[in-house]
Formats: sequence, structure tokens, C-alpha cells
Amino acid sequence: MKASSFRKRITFLREELDRLPVDTLWILQPENRRYLSGFKATDGQLTESSGSLLITKEESLLVTDSRYTTEAEHEAVDFEVVTLKKGFVEGIPNLLSRLGTRNLGFEENHVTWGTHHELARAFRKLSPPIRLTPLKGLVENMREVKDADEIRVMEASAALMSRILSEIIDTLKPGTTERKVAWQIENLAREGGAEGLAFPSIVASGPNSALPHAVPTDRKIRTREPITLDVGVKLDSYCCDMTRTVFIGGATPKFKRIYGTVRRAQLAALENIRPGVKSILPDSTARDLIRDAGFGDFFGHSLGHGVGLATHERPRLGPEKPVTLKEGMVVTDEPGIYIPGEGGVRLEEMVVIEKEGARVLTKDKHFHEF
Amino acid sequence: MKASSFRKRITFLREELDRLPVDTLWILQPENRRYLSGFKATDGQLTESSGSLLITKEESLLVTDSRYTTEAEHEAVDFEVVTLKKGFVEGIPNLLSRLGTRNLGFEENHVTWGTHHELARAFRKLSPPIRLTPLKGLVENMREVKDADEIRVMEASAALMSRILSEIIDTLKPGTTERKVAWQIENLAREGGAEGLAFPSIVASGPNSALPHAVPTDRKIRTREPITLDVGVKLDSYCCDMTRTVFIGGATPKFKRIYGTVRRAQLAALENIRPGVKSILPDSTARDLIRDAGFGDFFGHSLGHGVGLATHERPRLGPEKPVTLKEGMVVTDEPGIYIPGEGGVRLEEMVVIEKEGARVLTKDKHFHEF
Repeated sequence: MKASSFRKRITFLREELDRLPVDTLWILQPENRRYLSGFKATDGQLTESSGSLLITKEESLLVTDSRYTTEAEHEAVDFEVVTLKKGFVEGIPNLLSRLGTRNLGFEENHVTWGTHHELARAFRKLSPPIRLTPLKGLVENMREVKDADEIRVMEASAALMSRILSEIIDTLKPGTTERKVAWQIENLAREGGAEGLAFPSIVASGPNSALPHAVPTDRKIRTREPITLDVGVKLDSYCCDMTRTVFIGGATPKFKRIYGTVRRAQLAALENIRPGVKSILPDSTARDLIRDAGFGDFFGHSLGHGVGLATHERPRLGPEKPVTLKEGMVVTDEPGIYIPGEGGVRLEEMVVIEKEGARVLTKDKHFHEF
Repeated sequence: MKASSFRKRITFLREELDRLPVDTLWILQPENRRYLSGFKATDGQLTESSGSLLITKEESLLVTDSRYTTEAEHEAVDFEVVTLKKGFVEGIPNLLSRLGTRNLGFEENHVTWGTHHELARAFRKLSPPIRLTPLKGLVENMREVKDADEIRVMEASAALMSRILSEIIDTLKPGTTERKVAWQIENLAREGGAEGLAFPSIVASGPNSALPHAVPTDRKIRTREPITLDVGVKLDSYCCDMTRTVFIGGATPKFKRIYGTVRRAQLAALENIRPGVKSILPDSTARDLIRDAGFGDFFGHSLGHGVGLATHERPRLGPEKPVTLKEGMVVTDEPGIYIPGEGGVRLEEMVVIEKEGARVLTKDKHFHEF
């Protein structure tokens, strides 16, 4: 990824600073940190941060500990790497005094109540004291629209995942367990150069496919039943997300009807994923079509979601909270019908929104013509 | 794991309720949730909870959404599963009113500032209003001492990891890359029945072994250089953590001296891991020995840490914040010496503290006699 892409993001963020009541931004959410700096480390445990960013109008610091210094210096573009000997709360007051911070903006959905409490107590004792101001979705909003660099990486991520999924479906045999198929996917992802999976694969057969978030089991897959594969790899930190439901040796008349309905809903929604459209429109397009086919009670989730450094990010394509779709957004189009105890069908493409409409990034062509 | 083990934990927690200024406990930290209920789900993303517990003197609720209902009902012992249609913040006031909650205790290191803020606003509008009280380490403290059920699972986890690591070391060949070895470990873990890795394996050769938290690279391993393997699997939700540094075809005199020092430090510390001892004693035993051998500047981290549902948990075995070691704690003993640019040696055993002292759970015997 080009250094210039990172510089543009920081420039944009510094302009935001003028509109905010803070003089310093503290960024610790891992994907936001990666987006702004290029620093790829993940956080080992929820309570174990691998580092955070402090950004003012003039300076960009990446604050970490000795475990990550080498990696941070190698990866972060234009950030000065500062290695703290003790914890963040102990080391931060000195750094902020160096930066001249009077009002620190923090990510309200990523700083715990306890950390805020501890910092607020330490900051009150300083002279002059430092204020803490909650910020919501600042970098998440920036991440909604992808730049050319990001789209290039996501094309590669989608191409790799599509190639793997095509191979898996081509070699799928009755008698194999769901768990074994999931493990094959992970092996192919690793051999194909992915950093790993974007999320644990869903391989759900027969009645298990009625659970939208099924965990792979030792159940053996059979002919003439739905087999749902919802999979994604991570490549250069960017996620892919795609789903196919396939049948070996055909399907029952009922599931042919379900499959056809889901596929028509997906294609109809796709037509309405374009710049300037409200995010609720593609969802209602698919939902209305599924309802009119008599399956309205069996499509419980939203139509789709943004994908990028995280598997689930903005914008959400659901029946609520409309936002306007923009060129450069990458979203999923994934209607589904789930009949409890019997099975389900979900079809998911990942698309990038371009001037003329949605361009599908996921390339696998295993669609049934029911 | 026995239902009676979970019941004991809930009984203990209910007794704690009498000593706390709250009438309801809200538990959302994934390992704490697993520890109290048996519900195994992990949280997909930081901001995507798979559920949380509400515990009063009389009732135990597991609050989740439709994605996890089936799993929760199957796994959670003695919990009533409640499926919310909308988000937690929207659904919780009704549930708390049913429970008669007046003061809700929350985990201050796992609830974000934003969630607390939103809940506090919603709770103030209720009549009577509900108070929010921060709690710190309540369940984490309980998890410090393992019961017989947990020790049995951790023995199995350590046995599996030891068998895999022994096989890896026996077949280690110069010319293989670090990344390839790491991938072999993951394959063997999965084939051996593990749920997955407890943490990404460290395979660090030559100068890379000087970084305590090195990420596997495409560097080919060579003879006569340190190769550090820090690995762990997860079995039935419980982690294992162990490290060996090995040399193929012998070591330089300097690294023989370093290795011998680390091994002596480890064994000396082991003698001081027993009930009633302060947690700083094993650390200082190892640290003094390493300092006296002339390597005092090259042992930067703590001697060890607790292991259980999380790879890193209480108690910490370091030079600060002494706690008293107790029977049933499971901790690591992992001194190391790291010479920047040259290489490092770390040896790590995972042990359970018994009446007579530490019993080593990790079984691999690949120690050099330098």
C-alpha cells in the first residue's frame, strides 16, 4: 500500500481536528490504527493492546511496548514510534505534556470504562489538567469509502477466496464432514498466501444450514440437501466475505423454489446498489421479493454490510438507519431463507460501488439454475 | 466439564453478591462468561458480543441474539436463555425490571465508555432508576485457582501440545522456513483435536529469536543457531503455553552458556513455585541467577503468568505486585535471555501448584545438556 494513501488519511484527519473540540486524537481500535498508520499488529487479548496512535496537527506518534517496536518501525508510515517501559496509563501523561495536549479525543466504543476512569483521575492531577472527550465513528466513517489502493487489495482478496471456494465446491463429496471441509478451506487459504481467515468458516449442511451462523460439526454432508459455505480470507489485512449454498445431485422442489427466490432477490438487490441510493432500498427490494414468494418470515437478518479491514463495518444494508450509498463503498449482498429444522439457502456476493452501479468482486460461478 | 462445577461457581458468586453494593451482576467478558455458564462462543469482533450473563440471588439469564440461541441452550448449564430481537441496550431495561434490579454491577475493564454512557442514560429515565456500579476482577479472581475439572482439561491440553512440539522438534530440519514450521504446528493441533491455537505460534530462528514476541517469517532455519518455539493449543476452551529453544548440531560457546543459565534459572524458580509463597519470589530467584551470570540486562519480561481460559491471566509472576501463590493455580515458568542482533533463549513450562510444590504439566523433554 502506498505511503501517499496513508498521508492523505492523516491530512484528512488533521482537517477534522479543526472541527472537533480536541487538539489530540487517541486511536487504539486495531483496524483504525492499521488504517491510519499501516501498523498491522492485532491485539492478543481484549485487555492487551499492541499499541495506539496519538495524532495532533503537527505530530504523529505510535505508542507501543518493546514487544512491537521493531514491527511498528518497519510498518508505520510517517509515525514516530515511542516505546513505553511501563503501561499506557503510566506513560501517557509525559507524552501528552510534550505534545501540549489540553483536550484528548478518545474512541468511546473502544476505551473501557475502567481505562477512562483511570486516565481521567491521572489527568485531573496534572497542571494544567487534560480533558477527555468521547468521539464516535470518526475513523470508521473514513473507512466507509475505499480508496484505489484498498480496492486493489480487496479485489485480490476476493479473487483468492473465489478460487479456493470454487475448488472446494468442485471437489465436494457426500460423506465428508462439515468440519473437514472447513479445515480444507483454511489450508487452501494459507497455502494461497492469505494471512488467515477473516472469520471462522461456516460449513452447514442439511438442517444445520437453517442456522445463519452455524459452527461446522462432524455431520457428514449428503446429496440433495442444502450445503451453505460462508467463507472469507484476510489478505494484506483486508477481508473478503462470500457465501454459496450448493446441492449435490439436485434439490427437492421446495428447496429449488427457495433457492430460486434467494437468487432472484440477490440479483434484484444488486440493481439497487449504486451511488446516491439509500441503503434501505436494496434491502427492501430483496425483502419484498422474498415476502411476495411466501417466505417473508424466514429472512431474519439484514441484506448486507460493509467489508474492509473488518469483516463487518459500515455501511449496514438493512431495513433501518438509512445512509446514502457512495462510490468506493464495498458491501455484501446476501439474502437468505432459513426454514427451522429443514435447512436454508444464503447467497452472498461482495461488491464495490462504482459510478454506474455495483461491480461484483467475488468470482465463483457455482450458481444453480433452479 | 461437570454441571456441578458450574453450579459451585454460581453459588460462590451469589455469596459475593451479599458483600457487594449491587443486586445483579452483568458478565460479558467472554472467558468469564464461559467460566460461569459453559457457553463457549467467542465474540466475532470487539464490538460484536455473542451474549452476556445477568445473575441475581435467584436467577441466571444468558442474554443473546438469534444467531446463538441454539448453541447457548445446548451449552449453558442452569441458565435461562433469553433471545433479544434488537440490541442489548434496547432490550436490557425490560429484563432488569423483570429481575427487580436496582443496582447493576458491570465489568469495568470490558464495558466501553460508550456503552456505559448509553446504558446510564437509558437507566436514568426508568422509574425507579437503575444504578450502574463498576466491578473489577470479580470473576478473574475466581478463575485464578483451578478446580479439579479444569486441571484435568489443562493436563490434556498440555499433553497434546507437548506431543505435537516433540514431533516438530524431532523432525526439524535446516532449510525449512519459520512460517512453514508454524503452519505444521497448526495442522498437527487441528488433527490432534484441538479447537485451535491458544495464540499465534512463535517460531523464531537466529537473530529473530532475540525478539520475545517474534512473528514467523520466511527465514530459513540453520544449524548451530537458537530456534525458539513458543506454542499453545486450546482444548475444550482451555489454553496451554510452552516454549523450547533448540539448536541443531550444537551451539556456540556463548549460547551454550546462555542456554545453561536460562535452564538453571528455570529450575531454581520452579523450586519456589509453591503454596504460600509470594509471587515475586520465583521471579527474583530466576532474575538473580541470570544477573549473577552476567546477563541481567537481557531478561526484560516477567518470569511467568497464570494460564486457563485465557493464555494470560492472573496471577502474574513478576518483580512487582506480589500476590500469594495458592494450590490449584496454573502458571508458567519462562525465563529468557535475549541478545539484540544475535539471538535469544527462552524455556517455558506450564505447572500446576500442588500442596508439595509445582507439578510440571508440559511433557516435552527436548532440553540440551549444555
